[in-house]
Amino acid sequence: MSKNPLFSLAYKSERTQITLPNCTIGGDELVVIAGPCAIESEEQLMKSGEITSQAGAKILRGGAYKPRTSPYAFQGLEVEGLKIMKAAGEKFGMSTVCEVTSEKALYDAIEYVDIIQIGARNMQNFELLKAVGKTDKVVILKRGLSATIDEWLNASEYILSGGNMNVILCERGIRTYETATRNTLDLSAIPVIRSKSHLPIVVDPSHATGKRDYIEDLAKASVAVGADALMIEVHPNPDEALSDGPQSLDKEDFQKLMDNIRPIAEAVGRKL
Amino acid sequence: MSKNPLFSLAYKSERTQITLPNCTIGGDELVVIAGPCAIESEEQLMKSGEITSQAGAKILRGGAYKPRTSPYAFQGLEVEGLKIMKAAGEKFGMSTVCEVTSEKALYDAIEYVDIIQIGARNMQNFELLKAVGKTDKVVILKRGLSATIDEWLNASEYILSGGNMNVILCERGIRTYETATRNTLDLSAIPVIRSKSHLPIVVDPSHATGKRDYIEDLAKASVAVGADALMIEVHPNPDEALSDGPQSLDKEDFQKLMDNIRPIAEAVGRKL
Amino acid sequence: MSKNPLFSLAYKSERTQITLPNCTIGGDELVVIAGPCAIESEEQLMKSGEITSQAGAKILRGGAYKPRTSPYAFQGLEVEGLKIMKAAGEKFGMSTVCEVTSEKALYDAIEYVDIIQIGARNMQNFELLKAVGKTDKVVILKRGLSATIDEWLNASEYILSGGNMNVILCERGIRTYETATRNTLDLSAIPVIRSKSHLPIVVDPSHATGKRDYIEDLAKASVAVGADALMIEVHPNPDEALSDGPQSLDKEDFQKLMDNIRPIAEAVGRKL
Amino acid sequence: MSKNPLFSLAYKSERTQITLPNCTIGGDELVVIAGPCAIESEEQLMKSGEITSQAGAKILRGGAYKPRTSPYAFQGLEVEGLKIMKAAGEKFGMSTVCEVTSEKALYDAIEYVDIIQIGARNMQNFELLKAVGKTDKVVILKRGLSATIDEWLNASEYILSGGNMNVILCERGIRTYETATRNTLDLSAIPVIRSKSHLPIVVDPSHATGKRDYIEDLAKASVAVGADALMIEVHPNPDEALSDGPQSLDKEDFQKLMDNIRPIAEAVGRKL
Repeated sequence: MSKNPLFSLAYKSERTQITLPNCTIGGDELVVIAGPCAIESEEQLMKSGEITSQAGAKILRGGAYKPRTSPYAFQGLEVEGLKIMKAAGEKFGMSTVCEVTSEKALYDAIEYVDIIQIGARNMQNFELLKAVGKTDKVVILKRGLSATIDEWLNASEYILSGGNMNVILCERGIRTYETATRNTLDLSAIPVIRSKSHLPIVVDPSHATGKRDYIEDLAKASVAVGADALMIEVHPNPDEALSDGPQSLDKEDFQKLMDNIRPIAEAVGRKL
Repeated sequence: MSKNPLFSLAYKSERTQITLPNCTIGGDELVVIAGPCAIESEEQLMKSGEITSQAGAKILRGGAYKPRTSPYAFQGLEVEGLKIMKAAGEKFGMSTVCEVTSEKALYDAIEYVDIIQIGARNMQNFELLKAVGKTDKVVILKRGLSATIDEWLNASEYILSGGNMNVILCERGIRTYETATRNTLDLSAIPVIRSKSHLPIVVDPSHATGKRDYIEDLAKASVAVGADALMIEVHPNPDEALSDGPQSLDKEDFQKLMDNIRPIAEAVGRKL
Repeated sequence: MSKNPLFSLAYKSERTQITLPNCTIGGDELVVIAGPCAIESEEQLMKSGEITSQAGAKILRGGAYKPRTSPYAFQGLEVEGLKIMKAAGEKFGMSTVCEVTSEKALYDAIEYVDIIQIGARNMQNFELLKAVGKTDKVVILKRGLSATIDEWLNASEYILSGGNMNVILCERGIRTYETATRNTLDLSAIPVIRSKSHLPIVVDPSHATGKRDYIEDLAKASVAVGADALMIEVHPNPDEALSDGPQSLDKEDFQKLMDNIRPIAEAVGRKL
Repeated sequence: MSKNPLFSLAYKSERTQITLPNCTIGGDELVVIAGPCAIESEEQLMKSGEITSQAGAKILRGGAYKPRTSPYAFQGLEVEGLKIMKAAGEKFGMSTVCEVTSEKALYDAIEYVDIIQIGARNMQNFELLKAVGKTDKVVILKRGLSATIDEWLNASEYILSGGNMNVILCERGIRTYETATRNTLDLSAIPVIRSKSHLPIVVDPSHATGKRDYIEDLAKASVAVGADALMIEVHPNPDEALSDGPQSLDKEDFQKLMDNIRPIAEAVGRKL
């Protein structure tokens, strides 16, 4: 057992940087991760890769395994989706990320994508975290729906203690009584995490607000508060999205967001 | 796809009763599930079975796989614990329940215990729910830390839609801002569930309050509000418990609780 | 300054009993407070007094000053309402309670009713609490929408420290993320308060749930958990109520509630 | 009754600007309000005015009436404090703001300060809001501890409907389960409010976080997200503050905050 947790600044005072083929998360660069909620078809993901890479996103996202509240909702293309993701990443020179929801999905995804994601609902699926810890894959660990920052950091420790130090945290909003937004984006979490941990932090304003109109403003705030990366939902045709259409940006809105966060990034010493 | 969800009264208007060798959950009987948070040793669990069965509990509980916030905390005896549970159940004529935290644990536990439990942290571990749905094992599905009642019922649908109709719901407190108790026991959930679903409901006042002194009063309230069963943490020696000692009752307190809930059970037409 | 707060068991170990002309709150008696959300007319309140007194309620409630989210909603009959309340109380031999929302309303209400109520939104209106503390009027202090138990007890101290020891606390649900009920009734608060304070406690399941169908079950739970009194919304014609109709019981439902809580009251040693 | 509420963009599409002698809130200017939690003495407030005005703050804040959880905590200098505030404002050419907690305090404060503030605990003290509505004083209306945005806007309507259109809203954090910060700053509220209302918005990161180390980062985020003004706690000697010392900045930290928010203000087209 470690006296100081592996996530802590007491264990490692230097900030962790995660180097991917085309970008580094945790350094001077502000990295943008973008793409649709779910991979729906090759055409849809290729179009998404085109839109997001042209605007400056470095990492393509899209779900192949979708954890849905109802078992009757679209559950994702699974391995077929992973293959499409790999092809899209290669075509547009982007790194790729897909969420995994089980050990089986994890072992499949490792073959196809650069980064795996553990979603909010699985933040305390400790068996899955242990399995991720035994790989050396870069992983984005989303904060649980109502996880405390302390529980979140301890969840990261399940991965780190297995030997995998390539962990990125992702704030995506917490559950509160307020209904004007889908969740309440907790931007205080970024300085709190920075005061406790060396791990890099992504902010996902799309899932947090659930409404297209609020995303750009909160993306600006996320950059200003010190996020290392942003995760933004982009869909070639939001009105036809199989999931999360109301929080997806189209090509024009995403381009505008990228243009408008650039001055903020520069103001806090980040390159976009 | 079913128009009316399988959990709903619209699909099945008659209340579901779950019949175990020594008791039935969901009928006239008020069933008490009791035992320690974690199985620590054969001696500890045998003593727990003796105490709880003598006082009238019908189902012995105890964790063999413990989902703990920190990876460095005691994680459970695993299969060794399941074997001890099976032996204790047989010795004291009790049914048995253990939580499972992965598919592997599920397949192990099926061999040894009468009921498997999905804990709050795994309520939306949909892959695990699907795996449970493919068995015919009785399952207690705990409400997530901050799950809505709607999400909880939809999680049960992941099990039901696989063909396993032996689902029992368990209210165990939700996360709120109040810190006087570990969680806030949401007893309104019982009439809400009854108005929507035919599934039986257990209440766990031990995890909800986290404090020994409040458990008996909330057990009384749980019976009065219409719970089909109670889940109570009992330990032969709470001060030496490896986990959750502060919320565990000893032999005398558990006997007193059983004596004091009996008149309430009778007042609402239940046999204890 | 007092070392031990006046609300604490350390200051006064004997439970406080509040004696009214026709009942005592805090002793063996289970007292029921009932009536409409708002006093709408003499006819409506007289009918309410008839219904509730016949079924065994001892205290008539009804709002003359209504704190409403919107300034354009019905704000109450004010002094005219207080006069109607006084007449109704006398006619049916009931004690009476009205909420006050300002010092002016307080001084008016003192002349007409037996008990004044401080609502959830004014729990930390400290100037109003201080004014109440300078009177000797019995006061029901409702818990704030998201007040901790500690803040609530400290709010009572603002009244007690002025010299008015006639304080009754009222749990009415707290704000959480769950939307199946209007608020989340926190019945754990009753044993928590009992472990800290000598003050009597009322539970209001009507405001907590906001839905008629859940009130009786939660009234039973409230009695079982140890409430000294219940506050129940009753309206002669809920469908025509100017406010809170969906959570109001009619004559038949209220009579049934009274019949069904009686065995629970007896089971916990209370007279109804 | 108004069909469209007075706070709404449907009623008034042009953004409201509040003009004070030395600054305008709601226009191109980013206005900073700064000063101690409580006015403790003439010396302390004069020093605060010196520090904050030198660094560029335009409005001096400080409490003369302090709503405290316990009646035994320091309650403020009242009228004596208001007089000190007036003198400090004049000396340093700053506008001034003090919280009022009762109608009496309101009528006193109107004589001495430029802006009155309604605190979180009084957001739904409707009688006080109505009294404010009958004046033409500029008022900052803080969001309630767990008020929805809808309730907050409706509270503003109590003031607006009395004829006083000089209302500024202030986000100061909401109550959630997270304990790493005192409250959870809800920066999503700023774009939500902007999409519904023409009223200007202040953000108070000091009360929201409760911890000095997080304030600058959240001030940056507040500016980036579109706040019209910031409210920052500054004390000449935080370690000796009678209240809220842990969240107060000293001279150096405040100067650094002002320097570091300037580039963000420029990036979003604001002058500081």
